[in-house]
Amino acid sequence: MEEKKLPSRQENYSEWYNQLVLRSEMADYAPVRGCMVVRPYGWALWENIQKALDNRFKATGHVNAAFPLLIPQSFMTKEKEHVEGFAPELAVVTHGGGEKLEEPLVVRPTSETIIGTMYAKWIQSYRDLPVLVNQWANVVRWEMRTKLFLRTLEFYWQEGHTAHATEQEAIEETERMLDVYADFAINEAAVPVIKGRKSETEKFAGAKATYSIEAMMGDTKALQSGTSHFLGQNFAQAFDIKFLDENNQLQFCWTTSWGISTRFIGAIIMTHGDDQGLILPPRLAPIQVVVVPIYRKDEEKALVMEKVEEVTKALSAFRVKVDAREGLTPGFKFNDWELKGVPLRIEIGPKDVQNGTLALARRDIPGRDGKSFVPMAGCTQTVADMLETIQASLLTKATKFRDDHIFEVESYEQLKDVVNDKGWAVGWWSDDRENEAKIKEETRATLRCYAPSEGEGVCFFTGRKTNKKAYFARGY
Amino acid sequence: MEEKKLPSRQENYSEWYNQLVLRSEMADYAPVRGCMVVRPYGWALWENIQKALDNRFKATGHVNAAFPLLIPQSFMTKEKEHVEGFAPELAVVTHGGGEKLEEPLVVRPTSETIIGTMYAKWIQSYRDLPVLVNQWANVVRWEMRTKLFLRTLEFYWQEGHTAHATEQEAIEETERMLDVYADFAINEAAVPVIKGRKSETEKFAGAKATYSIEAMMGDTKALQSGTSHFLGQNFAQAFDIKFLDENNQLQFCWTTSWGISTRFIGAIIMTHGDDQGLILPPRLAPIQVVVVPIYRKDEEKALVMEKVEEVTKALSAFRVKVDAREGLTPGFKFNDWELKGVPLRIEIGPKDVQNGTLALARRDIPGRDGKSFVPMAGCTQTVADMLETIQASLLTKATKFRDDHIFEVESYEQLKDVVNDKGWAVGWWSDDRENEAKIKEETRATLRCYAPSEGEGVCFFTGRKTNKKAYFARGY
Repeated sequence: MEEKKLPSRQENYSEWYNQLVLRSEMADYAPVRGCMVVRPYGWALWENIQKALDNRFKATGHVNAAFPLLIPQSFMTKEKEHVEGFAPELAVVTHGGGEKLEEPLVVRPTSETIIGTMYAKWIQSYRDLPVLVNQWANVVRWEMRTKLFLRTLEFYWQEGHTAHATEQEAIEETERMLDVYADFAINEAAVPVIKGRKSETEKFAGAKATYSIEAMMGDTKALQSGTSHFLGQNFAQAFDIKFLDENNQLQFCWTTSWGISTRFIGAIIMTHGDDQGLILPPRLAPIQVVVVPIYRKDEEKALVMEKVEEVTKALSAFRVKVDAREGLTPGFKFNDWELKGVPLRIEIGPKDVQNGTLALARRDIPGRDGKSFVPMAGCTQTVADMLETIQASLLTKATKFRDDHIFEVESYEQLKDVVNDKGWAVGWWSDDRENEAKIKEETRATLRCYAPSEGEGVCFFTGRKTNKKAYFARGY
Repeated sequence: MEEKKLPSRQENYSEWYNQLVLRSEMADYAPVRGCMVVRPYGWALWENIQKALDNRFKATGHVNAAFPLLIPQSFMTKEKEHVEGFAPELAVVTHGGGEKLEEPLVVRPTSETIIGTMYAKWIQSYRDLPVLVNQWANVVRWEMRTKLFLRTLEFYWQEGHTAHATEQEAIEETERMLDVYADFAINEAAVPVIKGRKSETEKFAGAKATYSIEAMMGDTKALQSGTSHFLGQNFAQAFDIKFLDENNQLQFCWTTSWGISTRFIGAIIMTHGDDQGLILPPRLAPIQVVVVPIYRKDEEKALVMEKVEEVTKALSAFRVKVDAREGLTPGFKFNDWELKGVPLRIEIGPKDVQNGTLALARRDIPGRDGKSFVPMAGCTQTVADMLETIQASLLTKATKFRDDHIFEVESYEQLKDVVNDKGWAVGWWSDDRENEAKIKEETRATLRCYAPSEGEGVCFFTGRKTNKKAYFARGY
């Protein structure tokens, strides 16, 4: 019955995160370097994320499919920038069925190459376009420094791959899916992401342009939480994805790809969590309401449990868990479910039965301020409203935190000061690869994405006039 | 606009199957030997299978999780029989991140070893039991002869892995999941499987006992369509999965595992398909109803399409597709959707609009006998009833086909005659590994599973008295 407290976020944010992931039973280290086991509680959260995204993909006309895990090594080399980006990260199968393979197979790090090969076979005419396919899959990237959910050798994701007849259509798709990601992040996960285009340095290997959603974690570091790539005709040319247009001319397709991964679970943990543990947004929480029966004597138990059953029935529209474990104190159970981030707790004791009331405790507001006593009658609506309130409140709080930690900078000194311990810097930026590299080297801050801008201003770094603004921050 | 007919089943069953899978766009060959791409239509069927199974798993108390794809090679060798069974089929990762690995990793062919390792870590006391976990995953087995869905290097499946305090509980779990599989197969897929225990020769490598559901395909061959294994304490001993019992004694757990894969899609295709193409059971069909508008002139089109929209709205509770493609004849469309096995077709033409009727065509009854004209009013109920009727009728037909092709045999000569071209043989069997091997060698028929039996009889092979009966058939 371990009751040891988590390290506080202040004390050691990284250890707070690691221990929280383990102790809340979201995930565990696997016996293979850098790999994780997603435990049932973590996977249930991922399933809810999947549903919320999948509904949005289907509503925007996409369908799911499944492409092979193993890709001939030669495929990876067909797109020049792609191979440069991914070659150092590949896991390679050299033997199968007891024999050495003629050509090694790589475990997919992403599927542009294998999917491109199939699209070249399937697409003949403009009538076959657009192709709007997504897959839910595992991928492997041989990372050196790993952290549960944020960066693991194997991770789980969805990767959308689309092919279009025109550049314009492909660009619209890239932007549409970025919007879908932002809508999901903000409205389901209460993670107030910022959308924007990545710099040339930070874009996907093989893309013409990469867009991302960027989230601010509780330590003010940035986490890239989803990306959408406009691939131009790069992969179409490398994989010969062509179609006959309406004038019977053979043309290369324009393609896109976009992905969100189990990394997003890390975003949820570090956006909302506090020193007591996880705080999960009600729309995605595997358990939305936990009911803790409270009694001492046996005759109280029968009375209380009867009421618990009644309340649970009234709450059947929600994801409810009754914690009827024997031999544990209510206090222990409260801590346990606080650690696990269940948004709402209902306590039912003999007095509640007598008075026809329930004690509610909001996870997002610790202590007395988050407690209320409500009539048992009409509790379905009360709980529905309360969950909505919590969801909205998490978003408001996270948005305020984010905005409080973004600072306009006008000089490099100011930027250094901001990214060192205050948060994100945003400023006028005369775009330049070398200066971007210098800033990264000197401050460990990277260009997260370009920021919306109007007119012109003076670059904080070079003093030159520019029409671009950018966010800089240290990131995961 | 290819309109070439499929080979008939009579002519070439194997080619009928291969071409049907490709032309219905269920799957395609991948550019890696023995691998497949599951195309959107096939994956949508798999998603419906997943939902039907997952609901049943959750209703019986199971939760989902995700364990690593890559397993240290040494893990595979810890259970003696397991390694013998799987060693010849492994794909091996020897390089990662550009370097040779100290210990090679195998791509999971099944996950008893890696999951067993985690259970040993998680399970301490009887209070932690039972552990009832499932994962939806891809696995790789280096098969030499492959066939789309039936046997591919990579396939998709679920694998349940449970740990229990007592032998009895584990045996009950093994049987419960076999029942779940049979219930799914019969009531969702209309595939009338037979449940039974496998022989020692045919059981899972490392199991104490394997049970399977066996389905009869349209060519009367058998297809093992799902398995449930009682693993005894074999894996608990190999991976040190122990718990403190209520008397504070350290005990090994009793474990089970069970799986159904994308192979089941092959079972559906070959149970119900006819010479025109697929026939999908309504409960699992990605498209349950296809609406084909029929018109010649433009003024007819407006009239018809208005009615199509109205009907589609009335049928919003079903999975409905409107085939409004231009430039294709209704006849072409009918063939197309027949090939794809959509259970019910609705035709709406100008006369139907005038008369307030719809023309329905059942996929399972070709030609005039399957056609009916029904009032447009109340079509929601009509369609619901019709889909139920089709579902029931598919099961009845498949059950009759199965029962018509199972023959009691009393001698080896009779068995040879039956399995050669008539179907499955069932008879008294004095269990013997060597005789089983001889029958397989001489007839290519394998012992599919033991059959229910009462009392004693005379073994068809040895003439000895026995209390066991068994099914023998050629299989996939």
